[in-house]
Amino acid sequence: MANDFSITPWKVEGTVDYDVFLKDSGISRIDDQLKTRIAKYTGASHFMIRREIYYAHRDLNWLLDQYEKGNPFYIFTGRGPSGGMTIGHLMPFVLAQWLQEKFGVDVYIQMSDEEKYLSKKDPNVTLEDIHKIGYENMLDIVSLGFKQSKTKVFFDTDNAKTLYKNAVRVAKHITFSTVKDAFGFGNDMNIGLIFYTSMQAAPAFLKSVEEHKNVPCLVPLAIDQDVHLRLARDVAPKLGYYKPALIHSKFLPGLDGSSKMSSSDKNNTIYLTDTEEEVRVKINRALTGQQATAELQKKYGGNPDKCVVCQYYKYFFEPDDKKLNGIFEAERNGSMLAGEHKKHLAETINAFLKKHRQKKEIYRKKIDKYIVVD
Amino acid sequence: MANDFSITPWKVEGTVDYDVFLKDSGISRIDDQLKTRIAKYTGASHFMIRREIYYAHRDLNWLLDQYEKGNPFYIFTGRGPSGGMTIGHLMPFVLAQWLQEKFGVDVYIQMSDEEKYLSKKDPNVTLEDIHKIGYENMLDIVSLGFKQSKTKVFFDTDNAKTLYKNAVRVAKHITFSTVKDAFGFGNDMNIGLIFYTSMQAAPAFLKSVEEHKNVPCLVPLAIDQDVHLRLARDVAPKLGYYKPALIHSKFLPGLDGSSKMSSSDKNNTIYLTDTEEEVRVKINRALTGQQATAELQKKYGGNPDKCVVCQYYKYFFEPDDKKLNGIFEAERNGSMLAGEHKKHLAETINAFLKKHRQKKEIYRKKIDKYIVVD
Repeated sequence: MANDFSITPWKVEGTVDYDVFLKDSGISRIDDQLKTRIAKYTGASHFMIRREIYYAHRDLNWLLDQYEKGNPFYIFTGRGPSGGMTIGHLMPFVLAQWLQEKFGVDVYIQMSDEEKYLSKKDPNVTLEDIHKIGYENMLDIVSLGFKQSKTKVFFDTDNAKTLYKNAVRVAKHITFSTVKDAFGFGNDMNIGLIFYTSMQAAPAFLKSVEEHKNVPCLVPLAIDQDVHLRLARDVAPKLGYYKPALIHSKFLPGLDGSSKMSSSDKNNTIYLTDTEEEVRVKINRALTGQQATAELQKKYGGNPDKCVVCQYYKYFFEPDDKKLNGIFEAERNGSMLAGEHKKHLAETINAFLKKHRQKKEIYRKKIDKYIVVD
Repeated sequence: MANDFSITPWKVEGTVDYDVFLKDSGISRIDDQLKTRIAKYTGASHFMIRREIYYAHRDLNWLLDQYEKGNPFYIFTGRGPSGGMTIGHLMPFVLAQWLQEKFGVDVYIQMSDEEKYLSKKDPNVTLEDIHKIGYENMLDIVSLGFKQSKTKVFFDTDNAKTLYKNAVRVAKHITFSTVKDAFGFGNDMNIGLIFYTSMQAAPAFLKSVEEHKNVPCLVPLAIDQDVHLRLARDVAPKLGYYKPALIHSKFLPGLDGSSKMSSSDKNNTIYLTDTEEEVRVKINRALTGQQATAELQKKYGGNPDKCVVCQYYKYFFEPDDKKLNGIFEAERNGSMLAGEHKKHLAETINAFLKKHRQKKEIYRKKIDKYIVVD
């Protein structure tokens, strides 16, 4: 049966049905039992897991079994550098940073500069341009509070001596047929992007290579990256390594209510570089779940599940469940009108961005200590 | 029109018609004028060029124009490491060493360990195994007399920080369709080998990258590698670099008279590691152009063009034209019978191998100075 949506690492189209994706991909739901189990180790639950924004996984129970047996994991996550880093792009790193803190584990962050270069149609964009942008992205990521002694950040091109060797081992086990099916590539796809998935697989067992023993790996990721990691999971045991465990998030919606905040859709996206005024203007245009007029909204109330403003609090800006319930209730009962609602969200976002930029400048001075170069 | 032979970088089948290959590939013949032109700079001609063993080229006149204008070239050549390095495998390096000496130019030698790993069917062969073998190959190559101050040898996996970055630039301009057509790949080809041609292209403009200016490049190669370099030539101008010029050799024949001495066909191949006895036994079995009996041979004489013994002198073991003519004449007029003929060749080969191994041990002590590691 054809779906009404399609998801690749490079494009999300249509309205994503997360349950259908879960079923089609053979990933498992994070149920209450697993939520409780995670909270057992971390002391508290993370709001993104609690609210089922991180809603699915592969082998997370196995990973926690290993952890219980005294075989701790490391976290691998990453980013294809782009100029328009959005709030949505931060989500895997928010969870990764929290997991690092709670489990006290190492984090490897891959900046796949060559992937972005290889997928850009514009012939004027150079690898150096992407690298420069990636450096800023890296700062945005590390500023979330990653611990220097437990975090390694690397660009693929700067770390290729380590990565290429391991990627080649992966690549030997993947045919063109496989990537054709997995990513929907045609024969007109460039051979760099055909090979690339093996570069993304390599860090999923890199710590095992470095330590000459099998180290479990956990990858927090948005669901569009599942396909890369599925290939990595297929190959890892053939090389004698554990399959990486995965924890999957939904997408932060676009301001128009579309499934994914897309960095190429300027009006529906909050960038980390947006000015206060830009944020205000954009949020003012955001879709809400309210009635057509203030009168009607006061009378009938709105629908927080369809309201982007409410969803942004849920996904990112309001970790406190009680406060979030208050916001949802105010939307539902018509006591808070769209204008006020949006004003508050814009203020919250601007406060977050302001603080984020301040932290970024602090991290700029020490970022070199995080970067691994071959 | 289908040919009776097929040539890929991984396999040569049938009896190669070098004229047909030249025509089909659009490469140019090295004519007398070009031979004379080369000799003008080198002071003397090389027997392999004189005898049209190096018989074809791409853009060699352009390269010499550049040289005349004071824009000297560098040489790029390489080897996919294998345990069975043969006399035939030395041919590109013999010419490269001579060109280095005569033109005083730099030489880059690529050891494509990942290529061999990716193309091996045997799942027990590791990248480390290939690397180890490659180290011995490297010694065999450098022992031909490459000048330390002007020679860089590198393994792809050890130099991937430099190579991968540049290979990615190449890869963006090559589609799967292109490699499918060029190498005859099917959809079952692994994605490592699909990507690999861009790693082989990178050193063809590496010096230009290093020196931030366009440096001409000359690649001595056997004709089976033309396809890789043709792709490199297609892409180089798109990246702003000169197309590498090429000089093509024929294959050293197998002992049975087959077109190419193949490292996988033990009985018809002289390995650099063969013992004196092995060489004697193998040469004794070699195809000659002689008559069925000594009587007939004395009466009618033989055909040196069909005689592997004569051809080995021509291709490799007798640089002196007068002496070679003597050998050919003795075959033609029936004055030297097969047994004696073969005995002399076996002695010549064994003397070469003995000296080669002695040199190899001398170079073993200084090889580290030639190796470039990222």
